[in-house]
Amino acid sequence: MQRVPARPGAPVDTIDTPALVVDLDILEANLDAMAATVRAAGLRLRPHAKSHKCPAIAAMQVARGAVGVCCQKTDEAAALVDAGIGDVLVTNEVVAPVKLARLAELARRARVGVLCDDARAVPLLSGASTAAGATLDVYVEADVGGHRCGVAPGEAVGELARAIADAPGLRFAGLHCYQGAAQHLRTPPERRAAIEAATRAAVASRDACVARGLRVDMITGAGTGTFEHEIASGVWTELQPGSYPFMDVDYARNVTADGAQRFRQSLFVLAGVMSTPAPTRAICDAGLKAFAFDSGLPQVADRDGAAYVKASDEHGVLDVPAGNAASLWGARIRLVPGHVDPTFNLYDFVVGYRGERVEAVWPVARGTLG
Amino acid sequence: MQRVPARPGAPVDTIDTPALVVDLDILEANLDAMAATVRAAGLRLRPHAKSHKCPAIAAMQVARGAVGVCCQKTDEAAALVDAGIGDVLVTNEVVAPVKLARLAELARRARVGVLCDDARAVPLLSGASTAAGATLDVYVEADVGGHRCGVAPGEAVGELARAIADAPGLRFAGLHCYQGAAQHLRTPPERRAAIEAATRAAVASRDACVARGLRVDMITGAGTGTFEHEIASGVWTELQPGSYPFMDVDYARNVTADGAQRFRQSLFVLAGVMSTPAPTRAICDAGLKAFAFDSGLPQVADRDGAAYVKASDEHGVLDVPAGNAASLWGARIRLVPGHVDPTFNLYDFVVGYRGERVEAVWPVARGTLG
Repeated sequence: MQRVPARPGAPVDTIDTPALVVDLDILEANLDAMAATVRAAGLRLRPHAKSHKCPAIAAMQVARGAVGVCCQKTDEAAALVDAGIGDVLVTNEVVAPVKLARLAELARRARVGVLCDDARAVPLLSGASTAAGATLDVYVEADVGGHRCGVAPGEAVGELARAIADAPGLRFAGLHCYQGAAQHLRTPPERRAAIEAATRAAVASRDACVARGLRVDMITGAGTGTFEHEIASGVWTELQPGSYPFMDVDYARNVTADGAQRFRQSLFVLAGVMSTPAPTRAICDAGLKAFAFDSGLPQVADRDGAAYVKASDEHGVLDVPAGNAASLWGARIRLVPGHVDPTFNLYDFVVGYRGERVEAVWPVARGTLG
Repeated sequence: MQRVPARPGAPVDTIDTPALVVDLDILEANLDAMAATVRAAGLRLRPHAKSHKCPAIAAMQVARGAVGVCCQKTDEAAALVDAGIGDVLVTNEVVAPVKLARLAELARRARVGVLCDDARAVPLLSGASTAAGATLDVYVEADVGGHRCGVAPGEAVGELARAIADAPGLRFAGLHCYQGAAQHLRTPPERRAAIEAATRAAVASRDACVARGLRVDMITGAGTGTFEHEIASGVWTELQPGSYPFMDVDYARNVTADGAQRFRQSLFVLAGVMSTPAPTRAICDAGLKAFAFDSGLPQVADRDGAAYVKASDEHGVLDVPAGNAASLWGARIRLVPGHVDPTFNLYDFVVGYRGERVEAVWPVARGTLG
């Protein structure tokens, strides 16, 4: 467990480093913008909490009208339900009996949903749910183009939905149609084309359920990169964007329709410079254990021209082309993570600040099993 | 904080997933092999604990004759000292006053060392140490070829060493000469050449200290990739390898002199397969939050032919060329991390097993500040 990196009310320059920090003014503006957009479209917003794993931020999303949140693991769901979030959808397959038992226990205290893409899971889900005296919402995951989990769209979805609807302790809750691979296609036409294909897959899957006498109350999916296209489709009923409160270097590479980013960067890693061994080189205390590097290097937010060029375990190498690296010795800098979700997962706390003042220090339910 | 993934005495197949697990027979053989090699060379072994951040494993290293351990952060040092390790070297520059105060407090309870590569740090180190009534061991870090932190070898090292030796509360403890960039050069001749250059830099630095009337009791450095070359140099007095207890995919790419790996892979992530949506595709529950990806993808340890080909936050995509992916549904597989150090940093616990039985569940001092 990490040391708590700051105290509410303290000046920002007392935050210990490296720390994950969020600008609350920008965070709130991002939350408001998405809530307004989805409300105007007449759809339900169920933000994905896998990005932050932070019950306090989930509560801010629900306070702005979200119906609940998504998460990716049973223990994330437990942390969210324990914090008072009443409606949590685990957007993942869960098949291990010990995890299913936990999930079913949660479903006694909150509305809990989970995905299914295999008929072999139905008796396990049903057994866990009935043993707990609970009802689990089960969504069929259709593979709408991401080619990760999910059954083939169309008839196979209908067959699995029928099996779920017939199983004790389970409620067939709808279809999970998430095209994850489309989120980081770089241009709007690419993303639109991917979601148009996903739309056809979702419709075929819905029709196959209806043909078997099933109501499809919910088609849920979408992410920060594509949600406008899911809105435009007229098929999705619920949207699951997760990164929009924070953004990251990778999402900043997405071109938006008007060339501008709709959401602003609110999340940073605050690092300290502890060595300036050459005129163009400064070393900070945030390296491979302070950022996820799957989407590339972090970017320097505050120092014009300086660039984060290399990482080792606890060192980040900054190139300072102006040649005045020595002036950064002992300084603190904000860095933009390459990929928000796995970077959040490195921290036990996120520090919320407003202006020059720490306002909140929130626990992050990181490292969860299940 | 993670759920504890297993209980000592329980069968291995009850470990919850994803979990970090270590084969204790292999771990002990690796620890024994390094201890014997360094002892035979007549040098001191101070293993680097940044790889595992686990006081229990540090204690196993000390029990085999290590003089103490290294770590990379002040809070790692605190966790190690709290657990009874009496001699800890922070192989990093520390310049933030709040961190220096913590380090000096630790030095009242244990032998604590730290690096310095800037004259501006000397009064800060000295002030913290005298304020705590402690003595800090301070090593000058020379840049022996890694081009990360460190002063230029030779005269600049001697000048800084003199300033440290003259400062109240500090003991000039020697030279830190670590060629980190050489650890992953792939062939023995490349690594040997890099350490020969580092040797010349270390000797020039030592000579500059001696010319200023200073004794150089210790030249410390080396890693799992190069330690044989530092032994051969006759210059280093203490070795700091960190990865040898565990190994990883990246170290397995190093060619060793006789074509064989001296240390065996002991560390794995245990994952559960929760979806097999296509004959050649299986999805496990270990993704971007279960491994560090800076050194590439993990490798499948147990299933011949299966390969880990893609990751998202909580999913790992396995290619199963034999076409029998469905047989893996619900199965548990061991995966070899790409890079051991930042992967350890994702877990609050490491599970030690022997044969089919869990023997220990050790806390990991992950996510440390400072």
